[in-house]
Amino acid sequence: MAKILLMAASLRQDSCNKKLINLVAKLGIEQKIEIEQLDFADFIAPLYSGDIEEKNGLPEMVQTFIAKLKDADGLVIASPEYNFSTPGTLKNLLDWVSRARPMPWVKYPVMLCSASPALAGGSRGLLHTVATLQCACNAYIYPPMFSLGNAYEAFTSDGSLQDKELEKRLGKNILGFVDFVKKLR
Amino acid sequence: MAKILLMAASLRQDSCNKKLINLVAKLGIEQKIEIEQLDFADFIAPLYSGDIEEKNGLPEMVQTFIAKLKDADGLVIASPEYNFSTPGTLKNLLDWVSRARPMPWVKYPVMLCSASPALAGGSRGLLHTVATLQCACNAYIYPPMFSLGNAYEAFTSDGSLQDKELEKRLGKNILGFVDFVKKLR
Amino acid sequence: MAKILLMAASLRQDSCNKKLINLVAKLGIEQKIEIEQLDFADFIAPLYSGDIEEKNGLPEMVQTFIAKLKDADGLVIASPEYNFSTPGTLKNLLDWVSRARPMPWVKYPVMLCSASPALAGGSRGLLHTVATLQCACNAYIYPPMFSLGNAYEAFTSDGSLQDKELEKRLGKNILGFVDFVKKLR
Amino acid sequence: MAKILLMAASLRQDSCNKKLINLVAKLGIEQKIEIEQLDFADFIAPLYSGDIEEKNGLPEMVQTFIAKLKDADGLVIASPEYNFSTPGTLKNLLDWVSRARPMPWVKYPVMLCSASPALAGGSRGLLHTVATLQCACNAYIYPPMFSLGNAYEAFTSDGSLQDKELEKRLGKNILGFVDFVKKLR
Repeated sequence: MAKILLMAASLRQDSCNKKLINLVAKLGIEQKIEIEQLDFADFIAPLYSGDIEEKNGLPEMVQTFIAKLKDADGLVIASPEYNFSTPGTLKNLLDWVSRARPMPWVKYPVMLCSASPALAGGSRGLLHTVATLQCACNAYIYPPMFSLGNAYEAFTSDGSLQDKELEKRLGKNILGFVDFVKKLR
Repeated sequence: MAKILLMAASLRQDSCNKKLINLVAKLGIEQKIEIEQLDFADFIAPLYSGDIEEKNGLPEMVQTFIAKLKDADGLVIASPEYNFSTPGTLKNLLDWVSRARPMPWVKYPVMLCSASPALAGGSRGLLHTVATLQCACNAYIYPPMFSLGNAYEAFTSDGSLQDKELEKRLGKNILGFVDFVKKLR
Repeated sequence: MAKILLMAASLRQDSCNKKLINLVAKLGIEQKIEIEQLDFADFIAPLYSGDIEEKNGLPEMVQTFIAKLKDADGLVIASPEYNFSTPGTLKNLLDWVSRARPMPWVKYPVMLCSASPALAGGSRGLLHTVATLQCACNAYIYPPMFSLGNAYEAFTSDGSLQDKELEKRLGKNILGFVDFVKKLR
Repeated sequence: MAKILLMAASLRQDSCNKKLINLVAKLGIEQKIEIEQLDFADFIAPLYSGDIEEKNGLPEMVQTFIAKLKDADGLVIASPEYNFSTPGTLKNLLDWVSRARPMPWVKYPVMLCSASPALAGGSRGLLHTVATLQCACNAYIYPPMFSLGNAYEAFTSDGSLQDKELEKRLGKNILGFVDFVKKLR
């Protein structure tokens, strides 16, 4: 049985990426997937410094995040796009985690999705996150990435998507990701 | 049993990417992997045009390439980097293949490697190829990518690498890729 | 007085990038800018091969393209996005041109725009073209890039944009580019 | 007369990017360029949150950074590459600055360089920083980017480069950047 972590890489209370990850949670639970939702705010490490690392090792919240990864089989990140790239907030966490040995990302299955008020839906940001997590850190990124454009108008009041076809696709992606995790772990 | 295709994305006779793919072949055969080497020159399609496609469908060599993909379980590409990106030559083939339905790249396992006379070893080009093959076309890219820098000095006269540790790593990557293929197919 | 070349990097007759470049031409002429429209089909070189280059030098159409660049002060490219990246067709031309010495792109002002039926409007492809033309070849890319999403619905029957605000922005970009060209040449 | 800011985007005392920016300073002073060195540690803002921004506006150190930009004519950043991308530390600052109105990066001249112990020299990271600063934020990035590979071995004890040709090229880049600034401001 696979256990999947979910995290929205936004600190804003009313973040559309939180809404997206909540929908992933709801769809996952309907499909009997074991999930655990992480709160990004719990993993706010200081900005990376080689001197801090040398003196104190990895900050406690980074270690906690790594322990969460070890205790699960895969991770879904819903990430905003900031300035056509990975948010500095998320990148700082990824940079810290990449310093642990053995490197926690190696062969770790990750599904990336994004929500954005813009029409492009955040996919440029995800491309940079793929370069970091997969190409530099050797994580297994699940290929179909889900980008939700026009996100401020996309949700119903109960947290579903207005566009039912799109929601069905997201549900299929989640099942596909769990299958990917089971095959690769 | 997995069958793996190998192709160097260079048209030059004396290409260092051909040397690299030949080494992949040699290491693969030593490890009893079933391989087939493709000659990139056999798949030189006309530059992509939507009008050609509409009138004549996919060019014959593109169809042959797709048939090769279907007849095997995975593909290793050794690609040069041209101007920090995917070579136009390779990209034109990838663009054509992406027009077939069902899209042949979906869930297709691909291992990328590169050789380059520059020290950077071609890894910037591979990052763009990942964006195309994985993020746009949903192929399964094997995460460790192998970049060989300073490639004009890297090979011995019998086609091995001067750096034996590096060659061992390449051998491990090939085994790892075959394992990745078996798990995902 | 600056002379500006315009080219749509598509071979399709009914290309939305041709419509976009025609609109750039119309807006440019209204603003008394000296322009010359190039036909991408005139610059269809063979797929790049180091052996062809060594034997025959640069193909004639590549040399013609370079002569066009020298005879003008800047270039506007309207490019489709193929598979989240630069089209192989355009990339093959850029790869050939990058082999000329002195390298024609160095300090050459280029404005990039894109039209795409997708909502994202082709901006992922332009990011890769920036990596090639500016970061690898040292061209001066004009920073505001213009991406037209939903392009099949975007034009009126006389070739203007339905969205007049967007058209005004495109007109301002063209003037801004001419100013950029004049300052840098 | 142009005034140029210099900043190494690293918090480590013994950072090779600090050594690189110090060399830029030395070469700039020899060429009578007015420079001001910024200490990245002075601009360590909290991780970006839309809620913090809404409640308190931009953090004081971000405002100070923006005031520095306004008081000068161009900026040189020497940045490490973290995981094939922009460091989260630098990206967080860029993300904050991008929230100011008018956006401070628009038409602001920036020269990017990088030092890295790896052979690739950090150029993959700079490509992502170009996407952010130029393509998203409309800064004017000076095209030749300077990447110093093998950086732990690259400096002499007095802070020059062992490779005198490379140092000469860096000196020329700085002069070229000042010329670029003067033309565009």
